[in-house]
Amino acid sequence: MKARPAKKKPLTRGAPVVDGVLRATIEALAEGGYGALTIDEVASRAQVNKTTIYRRWPTKADLVRAALKLMAQSKLQFEETGSLRGDLLALGRRMIIAASSPIGCSMIRMLVGDGEQPELLEIMLSLRADHEQVPRRLMEQAIARGELAADIDPLMLPGTMIGTIHHMIFMRRETIGEEFLEKLVDLLLQGALPRAAPSKPKSPARQPKAKPKTK
Amino acid sequence: MKARPAKKKPLTRGAPVVDGVLRATIEALAEGGYGALTIDEVASRAQVNKTTIYRRWPTKADLVRAALKLMAQSKLQFEETGSLRGDLLALGRRMIIAASSPIGCSMIRMLVGDGEQPELLEIMLSLRADHEQVPRRLMEQAIARGELAADIDPLMLPGTMIGTIHHMIFMRRETIGEEFLEKLVDLLLQGALPRAAPSKPKSPARQPKAKPKTK
Repeated sequence: MKARPAKKKPLTRGAPVVDGVLRATIEALAEGGYGALTIDEVASRAQVNKTTIYRRWPTKADLVRAALKLMAQSKLQFEETGSLRGDLLALGRRMIIAASSPIGCSMIRMLVGDGEQPELLEIMLSLRADHEQVPRRLMEQAIARGELAADIDPLMLPGTMIGTIHHMIFMRRETIGEEFLEKLVDLLLQGALPRAAPSKPKSPARQPKAKPKTK
Repeated sequence: MKARPAKKKPLTRGAPVVDGVLRATIEALAEGGYGALTIDEVASRAQVNKTTIYRRWPTKADLVRAALKLMAQSKLQFEETGSLRGDLLALGRRMIIAASSPIGCSMIRMLVGDGEQPELLEIMLSLRADHEQVPRRLMEQAIARGELAADIDPLMLPGTMIGTIHHMIFMRRETIGEEFLEKLVDLLLQGALPRAAPSKPKSPARQPKAKPKTK
């Protein structure tokens, strides 16, 4: 007699449940969009009872808001570098990885493509402060270090970087990597206008090394 | 007896037909996406015979490519200003108008959301050179005028502007206008880093006006 796959006992509480349910929600959203998502489907994907979900997230909107919040938090996690350029590069790398992953890619397509869903719109607007938390902190640190011109809108800088990364991936359909990211960050930091010639620290008139005379 | 609406004779050739068919294609695409689009539907919207469409655009992909090309061309039409900043602002204004119009908005949602359609992807890639034509010309003119630093990738500048505008409208769901656009263009031109104090043409140590001595 063949062994049947063991039927898992549904989880009911604690961090693993929350985590599993929110991950299942993200997968379902990425695959089918907001309109098609049901609590039934999420319960089945996460192998929990529907009541376990309803107890914690009374409505579909509550569940989706929690899932998108978790996703944004994990997407933005990285070690800070102590410099504005370093932090922008690190944030940009996280953004490229997130937008290029199958689930991140489907999720962004869904967030843009399902744009007419009023409930989804309301959720996205309610998450704005959460999405801005990491970029805002980085910019405040940069300001404290004197790395930002006084007349710059601090959130415009990471917003421009993220917008450009998404544009390249979703509209231009290009694969972008470190080289693109560095050029982008340097454009944002230094601007496109010709710069006054600096004191050229990189190409000093080199002192030729004293060679052993071969004469 | 009530007058019945006159039944229009289907158009068969010439510029009005091309224009009408391509506009009908854009409307149908914006409403239903690429997958659902049929030549039948376009013929009916444009009030032409199917054969009129097939004669000029043998496949659905040919028709959609022509429609997206027309849309990009009309979206990018503006009077050049003779300066890089002026041209970027003018291009940006066109982009904001296009992305905020109901049809432009649906179209961008469709282009991002329907991203998995391989035929649509192929069409978008084939149109890249057309989409780049205007930005490329503007940047070449700016280079010729000496307005761009030598190490800047010229197409990155308009790409960054367009990406940021789309990000604000489709992800952040904000309404943006002239004030945002000017801040964005100035960030792209001047960069976010603190700028070395210029020779301060705006606030020279003012010569106090010779006042009549009051002593």
